[in-house]
Amino acid sequence: MTQPSFQDRYPDSLAHCYGCGKLNEHGHQIKSYWDGEESVCRFMPKPYHIAVPGYVYGGLLASLIDCHGTGTAAAAMYKSLKEQDPNSQPNTRFLTASLHVDYHKPTPHGIELEVRGRVKQLKGRKVVVEEWIVANDVITVRGEVIAVQVPESVLEELMKGKTG
Amino acid sequence: MTQPSFQDRYPDSLAHCYGCGKLNEHGHQIKSYWDGEESVCRFMPKPYHIAVPGYVYGGLLASLIDCHGTGTAAAAMYKSLKEQDPNSQPNTRFLTASLHVDYHKPTPHGIELEVRGRVKQLKGRKVVVEEWIVANDVITVRGEVIAVQVPESVLEELMKGKTG
Repeated sequence: MTQPSFQDRYPDSLAHCYGCGKLNEHGHQIKSYWDGEESVCRFMPKPYHIAVPGYVYGGLLASLIDCHGTGTAAAAMYKSLKEQDPNSQPNTRFLTASLHVDYHKPTPHGIELEVRGRVKQLKGRKVVVEEWIVANDVITVRGEVIAVQVPESVLEELMKGKTG
Repeated sequence: MTQPSFQDRYPDSLAHCYGCGKLNEHGHQIKSYWDGEESVCRFMPKPYHIAVPGYVYGGLLASLIDCHGTGTAAAAMYKSLKEQDPNSQPNTRFLTASLHVDYHKPTPHGIELEVRGRVKQLKGRKVVVEEWIVANDVITVRGEVIAVQVPESVLEELMKGKTG
């Protein structure tokens, strides 16, 4: 795809997340994009990301729901602001307030997974994203993320407190 | 602690989970124990398990809630069966049906975390475990896992389907 991913718009200072930061060399570095009204992220689990042999580790699936959800929230807020002002800049980052994951079927390992999302609610600084994971054309997992936009200044204060 | 961890009781064929399998050399290999009526797991995140610098990655916290929850479910079922028959054997494995995580505060990185659990409900093959994560004596995360006991024969059939 030629469009930049949602995560490519994060400023470098906020691009260290283990799930989605392009600067975290040990992390998953997921990439999410719009696909019409839905968002999509494709991910190939590593050989060791298993729950039992042949099936994907549930904690990884929760991580994908989490980071694809906050990415979708940021992109949805950006889209909404651009409709009001075409010169709007991408929002910085959303943090997860709440994560819910329902495991409907075991997710087979060894194939590329598709994580899809749809904005359910966007109100103030809060975005609710519903998501589902598709493996071999079958939905195996459904989830929901409540993401909250955190002003860059607050994040910088937080990080200063820990690293300064 | 001299007692074996909950995860040490999993049979080798089911000890490959990325979160808690002792045979997954790339995984977290968490260990959970009873501490009175509560269960506890201590875990030191790796340097790269960050959300933003100085704070722990939420997907890792969800993974800890997940695996400590299924471990606690298995141990609680074993304890309950032993009360009826002292010769009962440890149950094999529980899988996660549903995972919920609320992130109340950012979790500071660079210190050992304590994941604690308490059985809320044990009925038939289903165990509900409520959990919380403590960092520097502060609860930063609360969660809940609905775990379902899966007969070893079913798991073996599943794995045969994938690996045979």
